[in-house]
Amino acid sequence: MQKDTLFATLSEALAAHDKRAVRAQLEQMHVADFAAAVGDFNAGLAAQLLDLLSLPDHAEVFGYLDPQLQADIACRMPRNELAALFSQMESDERADLYNRLSEDQQQTLLPGLAQAEREDVRRLASYPEKTAGAMMSSDYATLRSHWTVRKALQRLRLEAPDKETIYQTYVIDGDRHLVGTISLRELILSNPEALIADIMLTEVVAVRVDEDQEDVSEKIRHYDLLALPVLDSAERLVGIVTYDDAMDAVVEEATEDAQKIASVAALEAPMNQVSSWELYRKRVGWLVLLVFGALLSGAGIAHFEAIIESNVALVFFMPLLVGSGGNAGSQSAALMVRALATGEVDLKDWAKVLAREVFVAGALGLTMAAAVFGLGMFRGGMEIAIVVASAMVCVVLAGSLIGLSLPFILSRVKMDPATASGPLVTTIVDATGVLIYLGFASMMLDLAV
Amino acid sequence: MQKDTLFATLSEALAAHDKRAVRAQLEQMHVADFAAAVGDFNAGLAAQLLDLLSLPDHAEVFGYLDPQLQADIACRMPRNELAALFSQMESDERADLYNRLSEDQQQTLLPGLAQAEREDVRRLASYPEKTAGAMMSSDYATLRSHWTVRKALQRLRLEAPDKETIYQTYVIDGDRHLVGTISLRELILSNPEALIADIMLTEVVAVRVDEDQEDVSEKIRHYDLLALPVLDSAERLVGIVTYDDAMDAVVEEATEDAQKIASVAALEAPMNQVSSWELYRKRVGWLVLLVFGALLSGAGIAHFEAIIESNVALVFFMPLLVGSGGNAGSQSAALMVRALATGEVDLKDWAKVLAREVFVAGALGLTMAAAVFGLGMFRGGMEIAIVVASAMVCVVLAGSLIGLSLPFILSRVKMDPATASGPLVTTIVDATGVLIYLGFASMMLDLAV
Repeated sequence: MQKDTLFATLSEALAAHDKRAVRAQLEQMHVADFAAAVGDFNAGLAAQLLDLLSLPDHAEVFGYLDPQLQADIACRMPRNELAALFSQMESDERADLYNRLSEDQQQTLLPGLAQAEREDVRRLASYPEKTAGAMMSSDYATLRSHWTVRKALQRLRLEAPDKETIYQTYVIDGDRHLVGTISLRELILSNPEALIADIMLTEVVAVRVDEDQEDVSEKIRHYDLLALPVLDSAERLVGIVTYDDAMDAVVEEATEDAQKIASVAALEAPMNQVSSWELYRKRVGWLVLLVFGALLSGAGIAHFEAIIESNVALVFFMPLLVGSGGNAGSQSAALMVRALATGEVDLKDWAKVLAREVFVAGALGLTMAAAVFGLGMFRGGMEIAIVVASAMVCVVLAGSLIGLSLPFILSRVKMDPATASGPLVTTIVDATGVLIYLGFASMMLDLAV
Repeated sequence: MQKDTLFATLSEALAAHDKRAVRAQLEQMHVADFAAAVGDFNAGLAAQLLDLLSLPDHAEVFGYLDPQLQADIACRMPRNELAALFSQMESDERADLYNRLSEDQQQTLLPGLAQAEREDVRRLASYPEKTAGAMMSSDYATLRSHWTVRKALQRLRLEAPDKETIYQTYVIDGDRHLVGTISLRELILSNPEALIADIMLTEVVAVRVDEDQEDVSEKIRHYDLLALPVLDSAERLVGIVTYDDAMDAVVEEATEDAQKIASVAALEAPMNQVSSWELYRKRVGWLVLLVFGALLSGAGIAHFEAIIESNVALVFFMPLLVGSGGNAGSQSAALMVRALATGEVDLKDWAKVLAREVFVAGALGLTMAAAVFGLGMFRGGMEIAIVVASAMVCVVLAGSLIGLSLPFILSRVKMDPATASGPLVTTIVDATGVLIYLGFASMMLDLAV
């Protein structure tokens, strides 16, 4: 169905307060698409629309909404309805929503929840953003090692409706220490009388609650896991992170990296939902900071004013030389940022990577020098050509090495290597390029005089 | 275990031809980590190491190796061994490997395979790279709608060992048309005598074989799927793409985007495995092309030579103005590239996004102008300050609008919006900035004379 038609159908149903039409629409499509359509309404209308659904349907659609819209709708719901919705939500989504409510709303909501839920929400909501603790769900299935496969399957059947996944289960001891894992596939294929202890895998991949979301996703990807168990500081099982949340985290991190590379502070919501004021704020900081970097280039030029005045042809080549250094530097920086992010390269590989970069950048510099030598001859004669070509080799080499090293240095001082690496590299390399170029010119052309 | 110790242990076991030691090591760790360790050996030694494993273990470890290493090892294996390994591999990985073999190797391998395998390999290997067809596996589980749940579960139990997943199954009719899906969780929770037709979901999300891998991954992520069914042009079910392959594709696309943004042609292998020659080749093209862009800036400067000579203070502000425009443009381009890649914004939103950008960039330009006005006063007096400040507003505005529009334009002409958007934007904006700045200067300072 066309997006516009769908919007019209839902608007009509909403105006007529037609529960059956809304339900019929939901049954015809995937819940994710229905939720996307609800997201096209403002929070007030979206809340009214969801009210036309049964509670389980409401909860399911609600889970697919954007977190900010969830919070806006939640503010508009009566306390008892919100509490009922909370009980139906998945534990990780519930905790996210709780964190987006105002303190007042949190205080009015909590008494409406059952004791166990209240504790679960509080605990999950307490972990810092972008850690395993904040991503994890507490709806996982556990088994005991002395059970038979038959008993395990019976238990899973009972628990299945409340668990995020039953395809991967976790074997714990009396203190909730994780002693093994087993998949539903293995359970189904095993002899019903076999003991869990005899068939479980004991080499378990797990993370701590405070592990960064980037590392959590990378583990899930590296080991091809459906879910990754999360342990507290006493090595007790406290949650699982599922592959779908890891996939969302991967996309979020890639977007953040791209924004940071271009010197935009990470946005807190998708581009189309962010206010103009937030966009301004997230961009202005680095732009102003980089002005001071550019002043270095200006000062460099001012310093060599005399040589420029006596050889005006030099100015013609300045953007070309400085730009080429910046471009080569951006390339190296981008390659490094992604290689560090995906774990292809790590901090201790710096020397090896740098050595290779000298070689590659040297070759690039020589190619570029050859390309501009002819131009130099044409515009300024042999001397200018020699200055431009030799400066080009050095500028490309310097740009590449700076571009390559900056992400390593940021990473070493515990900053995100992606931070501003594009324009920051360009600005630093620009100043370096001006100095190299005009330095060469003043040395070589002075001699020639 | 430390990486170095592991390498030493495996080297020793290899030298002593000690099968038991190698197997013991594999049992102690996750197969993905063992495969990573094998990847530290050269192809010849890696092949010998894998030879010490049983065939099923060999196949499992082999599946986790980097595709290029797989191909290098495969060349070294006797034909019958390679054929045996092929039969044990997952269908999608097998097809990838097949595509990396030389035509000679392919021809010697095929007769060693069973008829059904041969056809499967040929068919899967025939789809173009980065499409659903190239990502998909043919090891999926199918059910028929007239079966009972009991019969379905019996069949799944029999088929489980050969299927990539049994957690999501597909209901087909006699012509292999996809009529519904059902998850193992639902099967387990249903009455054993219920008919599949009565409990299956009929609103099925599926893709065509020729769909782009980016869209495939995005669908899996949007709908939180474990696996996505793939249909041929006659709407018949021909394969599934699983979430783990989609996650790899997401990371691969993000890396490619980051490289393209920085004007590096997409690398075909991880950074640490690519040769220096490939790195050189992937970078040199854009660097040389952008030289010609930079010539425009140089020509602009040359055109205004007279005004520069009479107001040398102008040169001091040039890197600052031009750089700020480039930085603002890079920010806009990066925001747009990611918003287009994640589907937050699409082509028809261009006018809306542009209107907002005028507002945001205008505010950024005014802020920057205020920041440099004082500097202008200090270095060159009131007139220079006015020129610099008003040029700054225009340069930031122009840079942002160019940066925002370029990804849209590339997308419109069916190119990847990420292509070279960083340095390409910078180069175009540089030239524009030079013209705006010196144009303003020549107008305003001429009047003032």
